Amino acid sequence: MPHSTATPIRMSPCAANTLNPIRKLVDHLVIKPNPDKEFLRLSIGDPSIFGNFNPPPELINAVAEQLQTSCYGYAPAHGLVNAREAIADYYTTDASPVTFNDVFITSGCSDALRICIDAVGSSERNILLPCPGFSVYQTICGNRGVESRFYNLDPDKDWEIDLDHMRSQLDENTAAILVTNPSNPCGSAFTKQHMLDILKVAEEYGVPIIADEIYHKMVFNGESHSFGELSRNVPIISCGGLAKRWLVPGWRVGWIIVHDRHQQLSEVRTGITRLCQVIIGSNTLIQAAIPQILATVPQSFYSETLTKLNFAANLLYTELCEVPELKPCMPQGAMYMMVKLQLDELFDIETDMEFVEKLISEQSVFLLPANIFGMDGWVRIVLTVPDDILRDACNRIATFCQEHSTKRCTEKKKAIEEL
Amino acid sequence: MPHSTATPIRMSPCAANTLNPIRKLVDHLVIKPNPDKEFLRLSIGDPSIFGNFNPPPELINAVAEQLQTSCYGYAPAHGLVNAREAIADYYTTDASPVTFNDVFITSGCSDALRICIDAVGSSERNILLPCPGFSVYQTICGNRGVESRFYNLDPDKDWEIDLDHMRSQLDENTAAILVTNPSNPCGSAFTKQHMLDILKVAEEYGVPIIADEIYHKMVFNGESHSFGELSRNVPIISCGGLAKRWLVPGWRVGWIIVHDRHQQLSEVRTGITRLCQVIIGSNTLIQAAIPQILATVPQSFYSETLTKLNFAANLLYTELCEVPELKPCMPQGAMYMMVKLQLDELFDIETDMEFVEKLISEQSVFLLPANIFGMDGWVRIVLTVPDDILRDACNRIATFCQEHSTKRCTEKKKAIEEL
Ligand SMILES: Cc1ncc(COP(=O)(O)O)c(C=O)c1O
Ligand SMILES: Cc1ncc(COP(=O)(O)O)c(C=O)c1O
Repeated sequence: MPHSTATPIRMSPCAANTLNPIRKLVDHLVIKPNPDKEFLRLSIGDPSIFGNFNPPPELINAVAEQLQTSCYGYAPAHGLVNAREAIADYYTTDASPVTFNDVFITSGCSDALRICIDAVGSSERNILLPCPGFSVYQTICGNRGVESRFYNLDPDKDWEIDLDHMRSQLDENTAAILVTNPSNPCGSAFTKQHMLDILKVAEEYGVPIIADEIYHKMVFNGESHSFGELSRNVPIISCGGLAKRWLVPGWRVGWIIVHDRHQQLSEVRTGITRLCQVIIGSNTLIQAAIPQILATVPQSFYSETLTKLNFAANLLYTELCEVPELKPCMPQGAMYMMVKLQLDELFDIETDMEFVEKLISEQSVFLLPANIFGMDGWVRIVLTVPDDILRDACNRIATFCQEHSTKRCTEKKKAIEEL
Repeated sequence: MPHSTATPIRMSPCAANTLNPIRKLVDHLVIKPNPDKEFLRLSIGDPSIFGNFNPPPELINAVAEQLQTSCYGYAPAHGLVNAREAIADYYTTDASPVTFNDVFITSGCSDALRICIDAVGSSERNILLPCPGFSVYQTICGNRGVESRFYNLDPDKDWEIDLDHMRSQLDENTAAILVTNPSNPCGSAFTKQHMLDILKVAEEYGVPIIADEIYHKMVFNGESHSFGELSRNVPIISCGGLAKRWLVPGWRVGWIIVHDRHQQLSEVRTGITRLCQVIIGSNTLIQAAIPQILATVPQSFYSETLTKLNFAANLLYTELCEVPELKPCMPQGAMYMMVKLQLDELFDIETDMEFVEKLISEQSVFLLPANIFGMDGWVRIVLTVPDDILRDACNRIATFCQEHSTKRCTEKKKAIEEL
């Protein structure tokens, strides 16, 4: 039975199946930027990178105050009661009252998603995910051995869900439908009617919705709905957090809000509570500051963020519409824009990955290839970038497309073909 | 295929198997304290509860400075490089140098343990756990479907591991041996020789050690060793964090340190990195403060903590030695004391659970029954309690034992027997 000493120790199947496509990309991308041009990263969904999207001073003050008032100890694993109360109040609408019992605080929205998927999923069941969609969903499903199934979003209809396609993916083993709204990577925000239509499908099949609403209220025209608010009969497990709207992604505070008008989720709530106990929840320093944060951050902070994001979206859209080889989609919310590559108009670029790699090595501009979100032939650009950098990036992208354009760059094309 | 609307939704097997014995206890303990006596909780391993164990001001200052310097964004999922470097320096000894590549920052030590167990365990394998031992290990194994197997600690030998018993539990499916040192709940700290003997068994079977060293250096006689430092041939995955030594359990910063002299853990390191990506790690505010914390907290802070804990241990030990129905074990480290109940000398108490329940309802003193750690007939008392409360608690425990003593309370016993 004794083994020899230097035998390698294998990682578990669970670790082997825990894959993050973004990581895989970044790990494998060995392309060097053009050393003559400053490297512009329009790739990472972290609003804090450029210093133009800072959290509100009220939030910093609230944490600074807590730091002096001895909140060093453990909280209940699913969160401090007064923080849960504050979050409940914040999300309560006339149509859907929320109490602290419906709120579970987690270590970021990612942890919220993990707990929700773990609470309902298993290796015998599947979860429906958006395509294109945020890559952590797949990481979590892989980690737990839950089957990921994808339903399509339609770029020609503002990224609405193709409900017929969704129906075709649903079966008796579907544990939940995960819906992201507003969306990363699409920058879309559903209409109320579309959300009601989605609810109708979920109701028809008796399947709960896991709503990733981390970009809740981050909609440029101001009209933002949540599934919890609109659902009459479908149990909703909504995930959110401080990361995006309050611009502190590194602080790892998220939450789950359970909307369950017909007491269908009693057992799942127990499951969520237990799953929170595995890592004993989120840090109490920030948790303790939540009531003050939610009470003191002024409305103007949120609207200024949206104004800046919308400005960036318009700038990008206008500039990129000028490039014949690109087809940008105007975002309606969140922090991202998807851009379709007219690949047949680029003579030496076959895939979004190739586009991204060549753009880095020639122009030092880093966009994310949307294949990592499940969508080939598109790229995602982040909106949280200062205007001058965005303009610079747009110019470089335009130059790049011109230089690779089948129609516009016949000389270079010929030169390459003659080689 | 469509289901009827109000069907309850089942929790997953994973959630159903995620059980924390402490939670189960607290949830089921409906005993009311005696309303005439102040309720004394000597049950929870949270040093921040009574205000007598506060984190060092240097730590608060370090975080306060970071709060003003824009560390709002995402860190790499397994931690900020400069924090990992500081932790590596801190743990480096001549015998076992550590670099930042060996360090993975996690959301508390619990998350570190989860990631280690997930990285090597699977439903086909088992992990050896100490008995008695910290209950979260079982919660994590249950969550992942890994078989928990227990090896005995011997209270008559300062809670050393019964190595023959450990050997009898090891087989070719053992993925790791988990060792807690210093120990919760035992308050024990192994000698160097015993640690070398444990390493010998692990080496013999070619099994890595997951060392829960959250109480590293919290040893009253000052002689504290870590497995990473002592191991020559056994790969060590050590878990630690800020919770106990720095007295901020609520802040949820932990770490994994990999010691792997013979490159046996290359694959497991990849697994750990991936598993960190599921919840995107620990909060950057505290992470960013780690270099300053480790550089500025003076040695006197750590030694004062130990002096206070040792004083509490001596006080408890002296007082409880006077009670014939109890047999306290003098702790050598950590924050806990285990006390054996001489149950055959208590006429109306059959189990540790019953002892605890009656002690609450009669004397309003809350101790943890050690059956939740796998050890029947013992209770665990925390040392992080102010002296006056400890004295008060000891008096009440003594009174309680006298009132339930077979030998010392014959009248009451008779009265009950006559009923
Ligand atoms: C749609 C979506 N959900 C969840 C997250 C993760 O949020 P958190 O940082 O709170 O884990 C992100 C982050 O980019 C996101 O875009
Ligand atoms: C032995 C042991 N390991 C781990 C932990 C958990 O540490 P953390 O709060 O950092 O998750 C504890 C907490 O009591 C403990 O006693």
